[in-house]
Amino acid sequence: MSSAPTLPSGATQDERRSRMAWARIAEPDDHLARRLIMVYGVVDGLDIARRGSAAGITGLSDRFQARLDALDVDRDLVIADRVGARVLVPGDSEWPLLVDDLEMPPWALWVQGRLDLQSATRRSVAVVGARASTAYGNAVATEIAAGMADRGFTVVSGGAFGIDASAHRATLAVDGATISVLACGVDRSYPAAHTQLLDQIRRSGAVLSEMPPGSAPMRTRFLARNRIIAALGAGTVLVEAGLRSGARKTVSDTVALKRPVGAVPGPVTSMISAGCHEEIRNERAVLVTDAAEVADLIGAIGDDLAPERHGRPRASDSLDDVAMRVWQSLPGSESGPMSVDRLTRVAGLGVMEALSALGRLDAAGQAQRKGSGWVRGQ
Amino acid sequence: MSSAPTLPSGATQDERRSRMAWARIAEPDDHLARRLIMVYGVVDGLDIARRGSAAGITGLSDRFQARLDALDVDRDLVIADRVGARVLVPGDSEWPLLVDDLEMPPWALWVQGRLDLQSATRRSVAVVGARASTAYGNAVATEIAAGMADRGFTVVSGGAFGIDASAHRATLAVDGATISVLACGVDRSYPAAHTQLLDQIRRSGAVLSEMPPGSAPMRTRFLARNRIIAALGAGTVLVEAGLRSGARKTVSDTVALKRPVGAVPGPVTSMISAGCHEEIRNERAVLVTDAAEVADLIGAIGDDLAPERHGRPRASDSLDDVAMRVWQSLPGSESGPMSVDRLTRVAGLGVMEALSALGRLDAAGQAQRKGSGWVRGQ
Repeated sequence: MSSAPTLPSGATQDERRSRMAWARIAEPDDHLARRLIMVYGVVDGLDIARRGSAAGITGLSDRFQARLDALDVDRDLVIADRVGARVLVPGDSEWPLLVDDLEMPPWALWVQGRLDLQSATRRSVAVVGARASTAYGNAVATEIAAGMADRGFTVVSGGAFGIDASAHRATLAVDGATISVLACGVDRSYPAAHTQLLDQIRRSGAVLSEMPPGSAPMRTRFLARNRIIAALGAGTVLVEAGLRSGARKTVSDTVALKRPVGAVPGPVTSMISAGCHEEIRNERAVLVTDAAEVADLIGAIGDDLAPERHGRPRASDSLDDVAMRVWQSLPGSESGPMSVDRLTRVAGLGVMEALSALGRLDAAGQAQRKGSGWVRGQ
Repeated sequence: MSSAPTLPSGATQDERRSRMAWARIAEPDDHLARRLIMVYGVVDGLDIARRGSAAGITGLSDRFQARLDALDVDRDLVIADRVGARVLVPGDSEWPLLVDDLEMPPWALWVQGRLDLQSATRRSVAVVGARASTAYGNAVATEIAAGMADRGFTVVSGGAFGIDASAHRATLAVDGATISVLACGVDRSYPAAHTQLLDQIRRSGAVLSEMPPGSAPMRTRFLARNRIIAALGAGTVLVEAGLRSGARKTVSDTVALKRPVGAVPGPVTSMISAGCHEEIRNERAVLVTDAAEVADLIGAIGDDLAPERHGRPRASDSLDDVAMRVWQSLPGSESGPMSVDRLTRVAGLGVMEALSALGRLDAAGQAQRKGSGWVRGQ
């Protein structure tokens, strides 16, 4: 699991090495490189970049020369191994297929951590927002990330201060799966104050980057990085963002992928919620207030429906608090059942408490057994 | 201006007296009365109610007998005069045409105050919300009501505690026009703690009810009253509402009138904002954060466009706080200009402060003179 060539892959060694080279010589938003590869493919395109001329491609000449001179893919394979990163390219069994939807997919991905990226992103959500978040924003990000992790979603974010960190930490706290996408190489921890947090994610989740080890975090790379965050989630939740927050770039990237965006409202007197309100007003985002609504928005169709807020709670009015908590935690009757074990975690209850509440709910027609677990009544 | 017969009207005396009688004998939601009137009209319908039988109308018999026995329209005219109320019926020059859109329009309206209802509701907005509002909700209701009043909108509400009172008070504070719609007769001040507030509205705005003087506030009348609030505004703004707030009935009534609803978001951790969030999520309301956005939503087409929130603030980044406040208070460049006098009130600044800030904004291209006032730059 440590270095790339050991992975079964549909990619040839030439392709793998060429992609690693491209990641070294061309920034993610290098349109000339994209054009070369589109026309000639990654392998022949690289040869042409070396040669410095190609029919129909202008402005090539010595465009990549300086970086090509410094290129050493063999050394990069050693470095990846040394920093505990595997290099993924399209065709690898672990390659996260979601990123193939990007207009500018990464050339390759350097990944640290125990998560299998492809399976971890089968059910995933991006949670992003302001670095200068408030206690309110951090609390909501925590609630939503933990709630999504409890529902089996992998939580993807950018490892930044504020909302990103709250989302990662909340996911780790409930033993959920979390992925941090860096704008620098995975050998670095940026911001430095998050070294410990990122190391924790390296151990139990995944830290990845499209930039090779040694790459410095630069503004353009942060912007490019956001599209990877958007691509690794089935949808994105925006928790606190000023009008010009970088997190709104992630919203744009998500919209470009035609995937759903949820935005959490806040006080209209808080400028740090203004970006969220604007995304809701311009209909790029749907207002969400909790994990159930996020799951409803981005979960698989028919699955993860948020409890209706009209009328429905009326029926459960007479429920005691514990039964209400259990009912709110249960999936809808059309969904797959929830095991009692998971229910106790989601609802934060003991097994006996949960079983007793299920009995009361069952008697009231509010819950029913389904297979090896439980769903709501009807 | 004190009693109805002095008003020029398209209604006959018979119609006027019959409508006053219906207001005494039938609650607003009395479907039997509605049916009688639909089939026979207000005058003949009343005769039939007296007779106690009509072809094709079942359940009539002595349905209205007790109240008919107590009816005395002449005395009611004297009472209206004594409590300083005029009685309006459809056809009166002051009759607010907006209520004719209701499925169940009021039989008549008892009105106190100096406002001409028809002209006051040519440009009007309903502002409603929770009685148990928070300081946050009150502040936002105040900002929105004052901002709408400053834009020439009449602010309609229900005189209740919380958001209603904030909306009325803010409007009075900027010398705007406000209408309070009561669920009891206009001779009463309900809630009693609002006697002074309602008296102030009676002096400078209008207090009205579809219930005759002496009528007590009852739950069904509050619900019925909400449709009048909705009908008297070109749209409704919901500021704080729990999931089962009565103010959501006003939203339903507004939606039924096919008029726009704005809802103000708040912290998702505040249950008193949950009704607002739900109305935004179920797409019955548009998220609004300030008066400019409300005016954009419900103002006349082409008029009152809210300033775009993208990019625009970029230019104002370098503004000092005072200049920013002035800039935020100014109407967009396509709108009518704001006088310096009004600007000082809206922005809460002294004249010299405001003029100095306008000078700086002018120099930065962020504000410009227009006619006798100012608008934003460009």
